[in-house]
Amino acid sequence: MSEVYAARRGRLRDRCSASGSPAALVSRPANVRYLTGAAPRGAVLLLGPQGPEEDVLYCASTPGEDPAEGRLDEHLTCAVLPAPGADPAVAAADAAAAARAEGLAVEEHHLTVARHRALLSVAPGLRLTGLGTAVEQQRLVKDEEEISCLRIAAEIADQALGELLESILVGRTERHLALELERRLVDHGADGPAFTTSVGTGPHSGRLGHRPTDRRVEEGDFLSVCLGADYRGYRCEIGRTFVIGTTPADWQIELYELVFAAQRAGREALSPGAAYRDVDHAARQVLDSAGYAESLAPVMGHGVGLEIREDPQLAPAAMGKLDACVPVTVEPGVHLPGRGGVRIADTLVVRPEADGGPELLTITTKELLAL
Amino acid sequence: MSEVYAARRGRLRDRCSASGSPAALVSRPANVRYLTGAAPRGAVLLLGPQGPEEDVLYCASTPGEDPAEGRLDEHLTCAVLPAPGADPAVAAADAAAAARAEGLAVEEHHLTVARHRALLSVAPGLRLTGLGTAVEQQRLVKDEEEISCLRIAAEIADQALGELLESILVGRTERHLALELERRLVDHGADGPAFTTSVGTGPHSGRLGHRPTDRRVEEGDFLSVCLGADYRGYRCEIGRTFVIGTTPADWQIELYELVFAAQRAGREALSPGAAYRDVDHAARQVLDSAGYAESLAPVMGHGVGLEIREDPQLAPAAMGKLDACVPVTVEPGVHLPGRGGVRIADTLVVRPEADGGPELLTITTKELLAL
Repeated sequence: MSEVYAARRGRLRDRCSASGSPAALVSRPANVRYLTGAAPRGAVLLLGPQGPEEDVLYCASTPGEDPAEGRLDEHLTCAVLPAPGADPAVAAADAAAAARAEGLAVEEHHLTVARHRALLSVAPGLRLTGLGTAVEQQRLVKDEEEISCLRIAAEIADQALGELLESILVGRTERHLALELERRLVDHGADGPAFTTSVGTGPHSGRLGHRPTDRRVEEGDFLSVCLGADYRGYRCEIGRTFVIGTTPADWQIELYELVFAAQRAGREALSPGAAYRDVDHAARQVLDSAGYAESLAPVMGHGVGLEIREDPQLAPAAMGKLDACVPVTVEPGVHLPGRGGVRIADTLVVRPEADGGPELLTITTKELLAL
Repeated sequence: MSEVYAARRGRLRDRCSASGSPAALVSRPANVRYLTGAAPRGAVLLLGPQGPEEDVLYCASTPGEDPAEGRLDEHLTCAVLPAPGADPAVAAADAAAAARAEGLAVEEHHLTVARHRALLSVAPGLRLTGLGTAVEQQRLVKDEEEISCLRIAAEIADQALGELLESILVGRTERHLALELERRLVDHGADGPAFTTSVGTGPHSGRLGHRPTDRRVEEGDFLSVCLGADYRGYRCEIGRTFVIGTTPADWQIELYELVFAAQRAGREALSPGAAYRDVDHAARQVLDSAGYAESLAPVMGHGVGLEIREDPQLAPAAMGKLDACVPVTVEPGVHLPGRGGVRIADTLVVRPEADGGPELLTITTKELLAL
């Protein structure tokens, strides 16, 4: 695996050199992890000005903690700061200045104003430039190693959800169902939940990001569940909606079929070269034309990887086109205030038609199950 | 409760006016919650330049989510931005400029360089100054309402831990014990765990912030547990170490007694007017003089409240003195690589001698229990 991280750092270095700042400071945790294999709390990566042999991961002093917990690239130098409370970014800037870097590109969308000032004050001769979202852009297209982590994460989420469906649901609270799902994710090998598990019953069903409450599952409810596993840092998402009891009401069947049609349209629009906004539109217009335009979420899906929400955004104003090997969610939903609603989410990997089209990672059935 | 939030904002406004910037932008989530009662994702508080009637909470657009989830001060104006992806801080700066604020004090330790630049570009005439950690300093001393939330949080953690001790432990994994503790916290009314529950067995015991693994509890192990409840946003911490089996080994008894003595010394040093560093020293020197100086954590305790780690830091180089009504943890520990260790943590509120001295919130016994 070490070669993978070295190659990623090499690509970033090439890009920095091309824009005139051969040294770079990466501070955003997911970016640090992507480039080194691990992201101890507060750690930053310095890409040295002269070449890869100067790359150093600066870690904060945390006695009792293993600073390199995770799968840190063992060929990378790791410097643990001796002073408690010292900022690794400041130490990195100091080192860059000592190595006579002309400029240092920093992540201005992550560094705070106060830390930025601290870098300037420790290395007043250093020209700080912006790295922009270079690492985030590099993270967009995943390699097969990354996709296989996502595939395992999705399998784990499918298993956890499948087991829950076999248990008695009526009478249990949203909070308990959410905690049980998270326990099952860990049982099946997840490092943890990918995000806070959402369970919505009755009037809460179909709400985006609903925080579980003490409401109990009742006969006739919609039950919507959204969960995901974190496997080696890679995070997937699955969302399903069920109906509780033997016979769904007509409005439930209609709403379910509508959201299902929107979700399918979104999935079918995934292909290399498809514009982000066109994927959004494919799903959104199904719900728009049924009169739900006002209540829709700003995105119909988003990229996943080391973060549960990363680029691309599948949104009306998003610029850009999908590439092969970009994993995304497709997750439309409708929520009717006071009544509840439906949300269906999958994680898929964009693949060319010749390879069979989009690869569905979350394979739990999307039939309307009556539980 | 609304008066409480208005009074807090009033104190902050007085401080800002005194330093020449009557308008302020609060973006750090715990600070926003302290001043408004709620902190919807991405929300920022603008303290208007002319007076409290101009205070506005700017929230990001999140259809399907209740933007004011929590206990938002109902007298506060709440503006939800219509455009998806718009930055509430930019909208607030725009409003401040429109209201002819001369300057706007911002939280430079929270705002990123990129957001700071976006504020300047939307309101080029606005002079951005630093608010510093004014809100964090205001949060140091808690009112009785806040302390009562912490007291309930501690009761919940004590209950969860007490129930765990009554169950069979041998053969269960650290991950399962941690998940069970978190489930019990929620069962007893917590909004969630205050931080990731740490369970360490055998060689993992006593490690600060140990992430639970699949190691199972064995006879003869030390078992150390660190958990806390979040109750209405307020977070407490309790840490205990137990021994598994009927008879602790001599080294276990000795190490336990040493850490217990250090923890007691730290607790007894808590009083209004005591220097932070003296509390640290009281606990630390017990472990230092037994030869563990090198392996100790950088702090022997810290403040708690809306964040699980807030000011003050009880550390060797910390400047400042305790006040009455400041809740802190006292949490020394020793970890022997390969063997395990002991960690004992309590949450207490500093009280004057006349009121009976420090108030212990986490009351689970600190005798060495053999389970």
